[in-house]
Amino acid sequence: MSTSPRIVEVRQNVLKHNDEVARALRSRFEQAGILVVSLVSSPGSGKTAFLEKTLTLLKQAGYRPSALVGDLATDNDAARLARSEAPVKQITTGTLCHLEAAMVEKALEGWNLEELDYLFIENVGNLVCPASYDLGENLRLVLLSVTEGEDKPLKYPTIFNSADLAVITKLDLAEAVEFDHEAARENIRSVRPGMAVMELSAKTGQGMDHWLGFLRSKIART
Amino acid sequence: MSTSPRIVEVRQNVLKHNDEVARALRSRFEQAGILVVSLVSSPGSGKTAFLEKTLTLLKQAGYRPSALVGDLATDNDAARLARSEAPVKQITTGTLCHLEAAMVEKALEGWNLEELDYLFIENVGNLVCPASYDLGENLRLVLLSVTEGEDKPLKYPTIFNSADLAVITKLDLAEAVEFDHEAARENIRSVRPGMAVMELSAKTGQGMDHWLGFLRSKIART
Repeated sequence: MSTSPRIVEVRQNVLKHNDEVARALRSRFEQAGILVVSLVSSPGSGKTAFLEKTLTLLKQAGYRPSALVGDLATDNDAARLARSEAPVKQITTGTLCHLEAAMVEKALEGWNLEELDYLFIENVGNLVCPASYDLGENLRLVLLSVTEGEDKPLKYPTIFNSADLAVITKLDLAEAVEFDHEAARENIRSVRPGMAVMELSAKTGQGMDHWLGFLRSKIART
Repeated sequence: MSTSPRIVEVRQNVLKHNDEVARALRSRFEQAGILVVSLVSSPGSGKTAFLEKTLTLLKQAGYRPSALVGDLATDNDAARLARSEAPVKQITTGTLCHLEAAMVEKALEGWNLEELDYLFIENVGNLVCPASYDLGENLRLVLLSVTEGEDKPLKYPTIFNSADLAVITKLDLAEAVEFDHEAARENIRSVRPGMAVMELSAKTGQGMDHWLGFLRSKIART
């Protein structure tokens, strides 16, 4: 069975190796003075739409954002994000349900991090697998769309617990699905007490100002 | 790294053991004359709402449905489904992102399958992990909600390929999200040529008749 001691041991080795690569990445990011933000959520929560809007707005404001985007197959998302004119690279994972630090390291080959302000890493759409893999990021965002239901934090506590900030997306659909804002916040905080929660819509732009302000406050510019 | 020969070998053993248990389950289901339908999708695609409606309608029509429901944590879904008055049991998987045949076998202890017409198995919400695990089911449904986007079959080809029938859910929101029905069907069929596709809304009931008719046609009653 999948919980046998042998599998656990193999998994621990994988995670240990990943942690070492992630640690090296983190100090490289720090030296380059780049803010690295990773995004996790279930498939279809709107990560790519949110990221496309974020890249575009940051570019317009004179910042230098970039993105890596993980998927099992296709490079559709990289093509979408590239419309923002920010540097973007697709990572395809085959059958693997998460990104690993070594994939990030490899994808960054040839990029000069000193010339960038932000790196966004969009993980594979999955509320389970990405939880245990450190990618060297400074901040991990967990996205939850109003159409998924308020109960998801309770059902996937580990991923919500591994995140630093929760973003509720597709706010424009909240009324149509009778989204209960208070219940969602309560469920998020019962799993991760004190976690900041933002609500926004990449489609209408609602809440994006607040998010951009938050991102700007995170990097010191001279 | 996670693709080392050792992990591949361990994984193959897990899958082989799972296949053996699934095979035994399948012949047990056949002997009992029960139709077993499993459901896979990303979190928040509406599996539980769809299943609650299905159980209720089958009960009203005089059938004897039942359900097992998988989640990492909480037994909220079993409580929801139990409102239909069908026998329901929750399986909690901890950190595991899929159900395995042995969990189904264990959950069925004490149930008399001869007294049931249908068993639905709702897998953990995940578009990756459940793909390789046979649960002994007769039919595997993959659900895709209109709010997730038409591109998901291309991004998660393995799970769509492992399914027998695709169900597009939350049809009542199709207009609000400008869902492209033709693109979705085309993407599903590019991954799994010839797969039947149903569109429905558990909320409004639209398309449920067609689904019920399909279920009824699958069991021969005297």
